[in-house]
Amino acid sequence: MLRLKNIEWIGNAEEGHLRLLDQTRLPGEEVYLDCRDIHSVWQAIRRLSVRGAPAIGVAAAYGCVIGVQNAQDCVQALDQTCDKLATSRPTAVNLFWALDRMKRVEPVTVRELWSEARSIHEEDADMCHRIGCNALTLLDRHIISSDRGVLTHCNAGALATGGIGTATAPMYLAHERGQRIRVWADETRPLLQGARLTAYELAAADIDVTLICDHMAAQVMREGRIGMVITGADRIASNGDTANKIGTYSLAVLAKHHGIPFYVAAPSSTFDLSILDGSQIPIEQRAENEITEGFGMRTAPEGVSAYSPAFDVTPHGLISAIVTERGLIEPVNTQMVHQVIGLA
Amino acid sequence: MLRLKNIEWIGNAEEGHLRLLDQTRLPGEEVYLDCRDIHSVWQAIRRLSVRGAPAIGVAAAYGCVIGVQNAQDCVQALDQTCDKLATSRPTAVNLFWALDRMKRVEPVTVRELWSEARSIHEEDADMCHRIGCNALTLLDRHIISSDRGVLTHCNAGALATGGIGTATAPMYLAHERGQRIRVWADETRPLLQGARLTAYELAAADIDVTLICDHMAAQVMREGRIGMVITGADRIASNGDTANKIGTYSLAVLAKHHGIPFYVAAPSSTFDLSILDGSQIPIEQRAENEITEGFGMRTAPEGVSAYSPAFDVTPHGLISAIVTERGLIEPVNTQMVHQVIGLA
Repeated sequence: MLRLKNIEWIGNAEEGHLRLLDQTRLPGEEVYLDCRDIHSVWQAIRRLSVRGAPAIGVAAAYGCVIGVQNAQDCVQALDQTCDKLATSRPTAVNLFWALDRMKRVEPVTVRELWSEARSIHEEDADMCHRIGCNALTLLDRHIISSDRGVLTHCNAGALATGGIGTATAPMYLAHERGQRIRVWADETRPLLQGARLTAYELAAADIDVTLICDHMAAQVMREGRIGMVITGADRIASNGDTANKIGTYSLAVLAKHHGIPFYVAAPSSTFDLSILDGSQIPIEQRAENEITEGFGMRTAPEGVSAYSPAFDVTPHGLISAIVTERGLIEPVNTQMVHQVIGLA
Repeated sequence: MLRLKNIEWIGNAEEGHLRLLDQTRLPGEEVYLDCRDIHSVWQAIRRLSVRGAPAIGVAAAYGCVIGVQNAQDCVQALDQTCDKLATSRPTAVNLFWALDRMKRVEPVTVRELWSEARSIHEEDADMCHRIGCNALTLLDRHIISSDRGVLTHCNAGALATGGIGTATAPMYLAHERGQRIRVWADETRPLLQGARLTAYELAAADIDVTLICDHMAAQVMREGRIGMVITGADRIASNGDTANKIGTYSLAVLAKHHGIPFYVAAPSSTFDLSILDGSQIPIEQRAENEITEGFGMRTAPEGVSAYSPAFDVTPHGLISAIVTERGLIEPVNTQMVHQVIGLA
């Protein structure tokens, strides 16, 4: 079903390396990065060559393997590797989750770490599949014909995970069972992950996908073309407040105005139960030139300033349900989050 | 105050020509188009080299002068010119308004037509100034500090008119009287009029302008940074329903959700009292490749389809007031529209 392998370990534990599809080069070119040292893994995460919370976790886990290859002192090397990788994307909770899990491996050997990284990768693929199965019930609820489609933002797709994605998982599963669905994809400025990645991977799987500019979503909703909205998440607080790609909050407000259900699809590892609500989620600011010259050319005059929050936080009250691999959180509130996620 | 002349007649009536700033080349280059025949005027309007409802009207009026220069039969030449120019932008009501006005000129001579075109141009500059004065009362109502700014979309600026713009008019006037205001400008995909034009002209006048991607508006509103939203209009129905650049409707919904007033600034010529409401406004669809390859490079995979409405219609219920050169329409409904506009 999927043509591309975005994260792959090449070779054996001791001498192998991590191969990543460089997503900054899509859709124009399929370029693979062979990461043989920690700096190249760090840079791949930092530069968004690998992106999406689950994929970052998988890449970081393999990064730990690379960090201890050829080390005299594996424990020390693992510590240093984790410290370095933790600085690559400060908002990505899956990064810290994966690093913490790698730190708990006993004994600290290349082979044991590699085995754990492979488990993280395989569990991620399995998790995507479970999210897809749970989200299919939502598709069945709201997508009664191919006239009313599913709208998604950014890329919470196969390219963002080690499997069939989170927000895209029900699309792949519905397509696999022969259902015709229409997906509307926000292009997702400034880095165009929707245009470059979501449209790319869905089209590659022969799923009907239509691209729009982000601010066209309201009009498409008003025209009655959207049955439901589903996005991924980067970090979810105890009460269900959800940090995700900038523009997600906008979609949630617009969906509410049009009476359209708004869903978030995310693995349980995305939840950060140490924070009560979204006000405790730090919002990364990105470089202004991603807006003013993001396409290999200058799109705004010299000297004009830009404001570029990487994320926004959608309050739980605007989210109809959160789809996890453990089931639906519906309605979205602290009690339900703890019921589905908290007792693991 | 303004550095650029976007529309200028060069020379005398009989042998002069129209000089237009090619706005498709901004902000990278300041290129002027010297239009000496009807086809070049038609193309300049069609290709958005000149854009913005009032500016299109002014350019079309000068186009009529060019169409009768050297004609044997001025009446016939004027008719043919108007027929041709009317096909350049089917949604722009100012285009038809200006052409109708030129058709009523008596006697049909180059000099009389030129005089009428100059009147249209001068009246437009005067109209912008009046709109600015009326909109200043709104700025005074909502912009109490430079912490809470004004958000605008697309370019309803000086570059879109023969004067200081419509939505931008109060910004220029406030700046002129020494008030520090902060303007937030949506970049306005797909053609980036906000980034290329609004940021350009405001920065050129030393007004503090910050660029955002369109779907960041919700977040900026939520952060309490926006005191009011003001946009232009392409066509306004009798009940105040307003067609404007795609994304305007989205802003109006988001403003309502955040309790922020949403204003439209437009000259009375933008009103089309022959239609009762927005459902009668045809929505132009633009080419898909403006989305999929709009920056001199391909931003989406080959073969992926895109949906690109050029306009949306904001229902009058979401508009706090419409600012015209004749005064404020507030509240926005059929009765108030007729009271301010209808009895002219």
